Amino acid sequence: MDYRTFFADRLRGLRDEGRYRVFCDLERQVGKFPKAINHRDGDTHEVTIWCSNDYMGMGMHPVVTDAISETVRRSGAGAGGTRNISGTTHFHVLLEQELSSWHNKDAALLFTSGYVANLTTLMTLGQQIPDLVIFSDALNHNSMIEGVRHSRAPKQIFRHNDPEHLDELLSQYDRDTPKLVAFESVYSMDGDIAPIAEICDVAEKHNALTFLDEVHAVGMYGEQGSGVAERDGVVDRIDIIQATMGKALGCIGGYIAGSADLVDFVRSFGAGFIFTTSLPPGVAAGALASIRHLRAHNELRIRHQERAATLKRRLRDLGLPVMDSVSHIVPVLVGDASLCKQASDLLLTRHHIYVQPINYPTVPKGAERLRITPTPLHDDDLMDHLVASLLDVWSTLGITTRQAA
Amino acid sequence: MDYRTFFADRLRGLRDEGRYRVFCDLERQVGKFPKAINHRDGDTHEVTIWCSNDYMGMGMHPVVTDAISETVRRSGAGAGGTRNISGTTHFHVLLEQELSSWHNKDAALLFTSGYVANLTTLMTLGQQIPDLVIFSDALNHNSMIEGVRHSRAPKQIFRHNDPEHLDELLSQYDRDTPKLVAFESVYSMDGDIAPIAEICDVAEKHNALTFLDEVHAVGMYGEQGSGVAERDGVVDRIDIIQATMGKALGCIGGYIAGSADLVDFVRSFGAGFIFTTSLPPGVAAGALASIRHLRAHNELRIRHQERAATLKRRLRDLGLPVMDSVSHIVPVLVGDASLCKQASDLLLTRHHIYVQPINYPTVPKGAERLRITPTPLHDDDLMDHLVASLLDVWSTLGITTRQAA
Ligand SMILES: Cc1ncc(COP(=O)(O)O)c(C=O)c1O
Ligand SMILES: Cc1ncc(COP(=O)(O)O)c(C=O)c1O
Repeated sequence: MDYRTFFADRLRGLRDEGRYRVFCDLERQVGKFPKAINHRDGDTHEVTIWCSNDYMGMGMHPVVTDAISETVRRSGAGAGGTRNISGTTHFHVLLEQELSSWHNKDAALLFTSGYVANLTTLMTLGQQIPDLVIFSDALNHNSMIEGVRHSRAPKQIFRHNDPEHLDELLSQYDRDTPKLVAFESVYSMDGDIAPIAEICDVAEKHNALTFLDEVHAVGMYGEQGSGVAERDGVVDRIDIIQATMGKALGCIGGYIAGSADLVDFVRSFGAGFIFTTSLPPGVAAGALASIRHLRAHNELRIRHQERAATLKRRLRDLGLPVMDSVSHIVPVLVGDASLCKQASDLLLTRHHIYVQPINYPTVPKGAERLRITPTPLHDDDLMDHLVASLLDVWSTLGITTRQAA
Repeated sequence: MDYRTFFADRLRGLRDEGRYRVFCDLERQVGKFPKAINHRDGDTHEVTIWCSNDYMGMGMHPVVTDAISETVRRSGAGAGGTRNISGTTHFHVLLEQELSSWHNKDAALLFTSGYVANLTTLMTLGQQIPDLVIFSDALNHNSMIEGVRHSRAPKQIFRHNDPEHLDELLSQYDRDTPKLVAFESVYSMDGDIAPIAEICDVAEKHNALTFLDEVHAVGMYGEQGSGVAERDGVVDRIDIIQATMGKALGCIGGYIAGSADLVDFVRSFGAGFIFTTSLPPGVAAGALASIRHLRAHNELRIRHQERAATLKRRLRDLGLPVMDSVSHIVPVLVGDASLCKQASDLLLTRHHIYVQPINYPTVPKGAERLRITPTPLHDDDLMDHLVASLLDVWSTLGITTRQAA
């Protein structure tokens, strides 16, 4: 085989389909969020970011940045080892305590990312619990899909957010067969939210464990901000809550929370937890400060929801194709990979607005979109500018989608 | 199934086998490395860490901690998105440039950890290159094993560091079959080093790609510190160099370096790269500073090797069972899980020395050991104290291993 030709051909294929990805080159600036410097193509100019998953701007908040700087100054950069071999610091211990208290669970366990948390937990349970069958929502994130797949446990895919279909699939197995239902609360590309209570009803009826990914919800839903399970009053019905510290918490890393033995089990058997350098103490300290702040400031969540609702309403009033979202996520449908990229390019070059085009494999072909994420820090002036710019781009490119997908 | 009973039983099994893991609870302190505060069991006292993978003490070095603090202060905590969706910052771009120049390759690609770098790269190549056969060293790290396994590509395991066996296995396939040989330079539990040139001879003869994990070598081998491939003058014969920023570089994160198209291919198709929040800009800035420092200071590597050689010689002279290591790693054989844990406990409580016991599944049963990692900052006084303490522990516990495994 000629490896060079193979790689070059596959990359050409991506370019031909219009879905070769070009990354931005940003410099975020404390005090100026959501503005940033764009370094693309050697030139630099200021842009407004409208697609960050730093949903609450906490990555720029002094309580977080000060906690990190202080910890790095005192305790250094990296942890220096895996959790077992010298890499558990006092900050890891404190953060796991805070996470378990936030989610009202016995215990919590840190991973290097939300991706690794999903992959490792689902893989470990699927491999280690004999005969476990995993029931997975059709729109679950890649990290869950891979976890289920690699566990090689038998799996059943239930229709997205459809408890009745889940019930049907679960009914095929007798009560004694071990089962696990894996799903998300907020689905990040469409912005819809799972009917958690109904899914728990079905899971309980069939004696299935429940695994809920709250990656796009922690910090943002519930009186204390621990997620949609808290908002809906169903925390005690979820066996495993999984989430990230890389989005609304503004840092990086992932975790699970659950019963003491279940968490200890994943700690003891999860390869993706065991065989890797643990998070830097500064990251743990930053995430801890972020959670404490978010827990205490529900008014940020109220403002966040208001911003999203206002933007959705304004865009809809102007006839722009906002997709049906009930969350803080504002997806605007384009429906074509190359047009979507052009819209994003025009927003950037003509209006200095940065919204990354979302294309396959993140969303299905034909459902390409601009995914807009207003934060509490996007004020009315920025929103006026965004709305006017989107209208200009839609008319310049003659984009005709008028309906939500 | 009764899930509670299942988890409790499995945990009891680990305890009965003496391999239930209890983590330390450390507070590292800038300026005092390798000393740290141990918070275990509510009490606090100072200990000397002799098992850190912060091999060069760079996690505590002001060039690194200042770079992080400064970047966090200016650019915030987290990156705020995946690499594609707003999470590529200028620090990521600069670090990838530095890494590719360090390894003398066209391009480099960051991952959230060395674990994810191995897993994602091997999985992606194994899944995407039609009919690829992967040849994997018998002692490869779990992250490589999982990458190969999850790719579902056919695999062949060659005997550890045995180019002849590799040759035999490769000979079963005709020249046109795509092949990849995956191995490490420094094997971290035994401290032996692969015969890289011989393995490359064999790989080239059979037109196989080469994948080298330099996780325990970057920063520590070669005139510029880029690893054993540099030291041995064989960089251009390795297609993919993989490593971590979590060990000698003192930070966190992983990467690969290779030809432009190969790296771009993994960037474009690697799920574990695409679907996860990117590293914080501060981490990228810290790693960049660390590499620049290590590149320029070969005297640190000379001192590091001297420390390891001195410790090995002193322990051997006293009849302690140092295993056969040709690297900076000093493994001392105990050969029994429970005895190994007792030795570690006694070192900690009686001598305030922290060396984590290494047990199954990290090493085979019967090969339990204390794995000691002297850094350039472990001076003669600390070494005197370690040697005396080990002797005391060996005689107190009546440990009788006298031979390397
Ligand atoms: C639903 C969901 N789960 C998990 C992840 C992974 O989390 P992390 O970015 O911390 O790896 C993501 C996105 O990144 C996600 O969207
Ligand atoms: C050989 C080897 N490869 C990869 C890794 C994973 O690197 P990281 O700690 O950055 O995840 C490790 C250990 O952690 C290792 O020992």
